[in-house]
Amino acid sequence: MSLLETTIAGIEPVSGQWRQKARKHLDNLAIPRGSLGELLNLAEQLAGIRQDLKPRVERKVVVTMAGDHGVVAAGVSAFPQEVTPQMVYNFVAGGAAINVIARVAGARVVVVDMGVAGDLSGLVERGQILSYRIAPGTRNMAEGPAMSREQANKALEAGIDLVGKLVAEGLDLLATGDMGIGNTTPSAAILAALAGLPAREVTGRGTGISDEALENKIRVIDAALAVNRPDAHDPVDVLAKVGGFEIGGIAGLILGAAYYKIPVVVDGFISSAGALLAKALAPASLDYMIAGHRSLEYGHRLMLEVLDLRPLLDLNMRLGEGSGAALAMKVVEAAAAVISDMLTFDDAGVTPDEARE
Amino acid sequence: MSLLETTIAGIEPVSGQWRQKARKHLDNLAIPRGSLGELLNLAEQLAGIRQDLKPRVERKVVVTMAGDHGVVAAGVSAFPQEVTPQMVYNFVAGGAAINVIARVAGARVVVVDMGVAGDLSGLVERGQILSYRIAPGTRNMAEGPAMSREQANKALEAGIDLVGKLVAEGLDLLATGDMGIGNTTPSAAILAALAGLPAREVTGRGTGISDEALENKIRVIDAALAVNRPDAHDPVDVLAKVGGFEIGGIAGLILGAAYYKIPVVVDGFISSAGALLAKALAPASLDYMIAGHRSLEYGHRLMLEVLDLRPLLDLNMRLGEGSGAALAMKVVEAAAAVISDMLTFDDAGVTPDEARE
Repeated sequence: MSLLETTIAGIEPVSGQWRQKARKHLDNLAIPRGSLGELLNLAEQLAGIRQDLKPRVERKVVVTMAGDHGVVAAGVSAFPQEVTPQMVYNFVAGGAAINVIARVAGARVVVVDMGVAGDLSGLVERGQILSYRIAPGTRNMAEGPAMSREQANKALEAGIDLVGKLVAEGLDLLATGDMGIGNTTPSAAILAALAGLPAREVTGRGTGISDEALENKIRVIDAALAVNRPDAHDPVDVLAKVGGFEIGGIAGLILGAAYYKIPVVVDGFISSAGALLAKALAPASLDYMIAGHRSLEYGHRLMLEVLDLRPLLDLNMRLGEGSGAALAMKVVEAAAAVISDMLTFDDAGVTPDEARE
Repeated sequence: MSLLETTIAGIEPVSGQWRQKARKHLDNLAIPRGSLGELLNLAEQLAGIRQDLKPRVERKVVVTMAGDHGVVAAGVSAFPQEVTPQMVYNFVAGGAAINVIARVAGARVVVVDMGVAGDLSGLVERGQILSYRIAPGTRNMAEGPAMSREQANKALEAGIDLVGKLVAEGLDLLATGDMGIGNTTPSAAILAALAGLPAREVTGRGTGISDEALENKIRVIDAALAVNRPDAHDPVDVLAKVGGFEIGGIAGLILGAAYYKIPVVVDGFISSAGALLAKALAPASLDYMIAGHRSLEYGHRLMLEVLDLRPLLDLNMRLGEGSGAALAMKVVEAAAAVISDMLTFDDAGVTPDEARE
């Protein structure tokens, strides 16, 4: 079996028994029952994933995967393609949003070249980024498949392989991020393909295009779907035909996290396209996902509905890079602290809630 | 002039000039314009408050103020009054929600006895809590004023005095919190009095009362309003007649923060009742407030509308203690990091967004 097949076969649903154990403990905390809202659900999920009533959330990593997109030739983005490698240099310099937010969250940022149209080998040699480079950008999906099926498999396995390495180093919480000029286009196309929707219902303005450019983007996505006819029942086919290298990499990260039983915070629109692919490949991987935030990008709301995930944050962000997921990591850490460190009514000598008896 | 009068007179609106300077800088960050959403608004607010384009958010304090309420005799709460001092002991032991969440946020918790019906002098002597104790609980507001006007002034000045002390020790960010069995009742009454609404439109279930108990709570609040006739144009009168010691203390914290130009994260329903009083006393204090979260407590939504504040978090929490505000502190810290540490397009050598030219 391939790494992808082994991984998918090895993903187990989160233990219902551990979830129940966790919920029982959480119900006895010295608070009015349920009054910590989503933190309690998150705490239960973490305990279930880790099979531990004191889940540790210390070693945090944000993986930001970068890739380029042939479809930018069709005029789908407000920014030129050279911004992708420029932003990778910015990540390495530590001055991007993901760097400063990850610092506040106490998380390490790992930047990965999945297939940027530019030479980043110097950064790789100096150990400043990792390379799982597949090609210098995808092909234009409006004219044919974005990548071969082999490349799609490679992208997925890159993410899985990387999680294995991070786990070996010690990993409690993973977050996904992306960088790639044009990548809201393949992300919208993946949603359209998997949910069987026309481009108009899933396509937004990305980094901020005009009304006219938005109409063009919708036409381009519809063309890509018509030319390629991705098979909704074959997620690897969808990735190959209308996806991107970094999106496949992110789907692989999520599958890897589920395989190794590590909670994974999914960022916004692009990362959620990866999550849709991961869920389609291995439905149980959903149990390991945490939606970091709701992006302002049109279509993300729908993605979250399809995934049936409630986002932790809703701050009108739409940047990508993993910025929303990194910001949410502290909420996840707080949930872990709630289940690990809080006293129960008995511990605290607090009069129980008689109204509940 | 009294401390309260001096403080109110000394509160200035946040500098529009500094806000503009901050916005100009934020518009040049190496991101699609506006794509960090609320973090940018928050960064602008912080820079305006601190009059500094690199506002520091390191020294963080959550002040949790505790007080008891005579109105619990009218059966408005699911928990007995002895839980207030028990929870103060729990805060001191470090096992309450506010302790573990503040630890994750990197904030210190300062617990204050504003008037608990129980002897906490041992904790005060050992320096484990502070005392601005006014009386062992308020009187039953359903039968007459909860406190005298003098006591209301004392409660407000306690908060102001405490902020002065914290500022002297070094303070970058303040958060407010409360503990007091029964305190959703005076909080709802304050909202009703200031907004001119009947109890039914502002009253919720607090720690979790039954339908029947909710009807009783609404009757009690309407009775308190009818008996006391608080003057909506005189916030101290409202506090005295239908408020609470810890609510007055929180209003004082907010006034103090505004006076000393310190951003203050307001917690949920009880803290927002304090915020309503602070805003009524000094409208410019609103410029210094950050709504930490939207509480699930019915009526908090309305409070946020009256305050015209957008909450940072919306996680179905309804605990109090300062838990929602403490959790939001990391978002505030991230906003400060965005304006302080991110590179601009020029710094980063990233091609500017030509679509915007």
